[in-house]
Amino acid sequence: MSELRLQGTASDRESALVSDDKLELKLWLRLLTCSNLIEGEVRARLRETFATTLPRFDLLAQIDRAPDGLTMGELSSRLMVSNGNVTGLTDALEREGLVSRLPEPEDRRSLRIRLTPSGKRAFDAMTPTHEQWIDQMMAGLTRAEMAHLLELLGRLKQSAQRAGAAS
Amino acid sequence: MSELRLQGTASDRESALVSDDKLELKLWLRLLTCSNLIEGEVRARLRETFATTLPRFDLLAQIDRAPDGLTMGELSSRLMVSNGNVTGLTDALEREGLVSRLPEPEDRRSLRIRLTPSGKRAFDAMTPTHEQWIDQMMAGLTRAEMAHLLELLGRLKQSAQRAGAAS
Repeated sequence: MSELRLQGTASDRESALVSDDKLELKLWLRLLTCSNLIEGEVRARLRETFATTLPRFDLLAQIDRAPDGLTMGELSSRLMVSNGNVTGLTDALEREGLVSRLPEPEDRRSLRIRLTPSGKRAFDAMTPTHEQWIDQMMAGLTRAEMAHLLELLGRLKQSAQRAGAAS
Repeated sequence: MSELRLQGTASDRESALVSDDKLELKLWLRLLTCSNLIEGEVRARLRETFATTLPRFDLLAQIDRAPDGLTMGELSSRLMVSNGNVTGLTDALEREGLVSRLPEPEDRRSLRIRLTPSGKRAFDAMTPTHEQWIDQMMAGLTRAEMAHLLELLGRLKQSAQRAGAAS
């Protein structure tokens, strides 16, 4: 475990909160802390175990779940990052033979990104281990707590989307 | 609102989930989606409204909450990023006169970072607006739902910390 992650257990964004801080702010900082904790752990383990990065894993995961492949626009929308970032990463994975860009039959100007057989094998070799990591990190919650958390985060997602759309 | 954020409301990491995916994985992707949604919105609004970046705002916020200042180690631990990233940012903010590095009275080799009066004014000018943004994004939840979400995220944080410490 890295030094940073050890420090992270003792001190994080929430450390400086005072009791009269607003509930909304507390909630946002705790959400960010949870997300950063899990993301940091997954990032470190992907590097140590599979010598890969989180953006690469995320990109392969999204393509794996799309049987007909994805356009660049769909891919960057799902990853919630800009098209520019996705283009460079896709270029690199294509050079390594893990993904391919093929024109759509109906619209030859539009390219769809798919996993190659070699990309599919590489991704399938990582997923069971990745799932175990996520399971471990949530092991302290009961199924009922997880279901309730999923529901409340669903409400938060809707709320944040509405605020984003209104801005 | 940016094109990316518009797309984000229609499609995100959760879009490709299928019904037999595990609860843990669903929960992790929804948590990440919520965190990315709010962070992306705050990032965009900080840029549009105050011409500043999220890392700068976060750094000023952490120092503002520490009356005795923070060492570089404390600062990077709270921000959950590496010392290297914090050093460059602190250098930039020091050049602009927003923070200062002063030696501790007891240990002159150790430097503590504090807000300058100008840094304090700059930060105080942003916080009420930043709080409003967070409030707006959570406006769809009742106080009871927020309190419950805070509690469940507290359990998740503990669980993820234990898994990280055990790895």
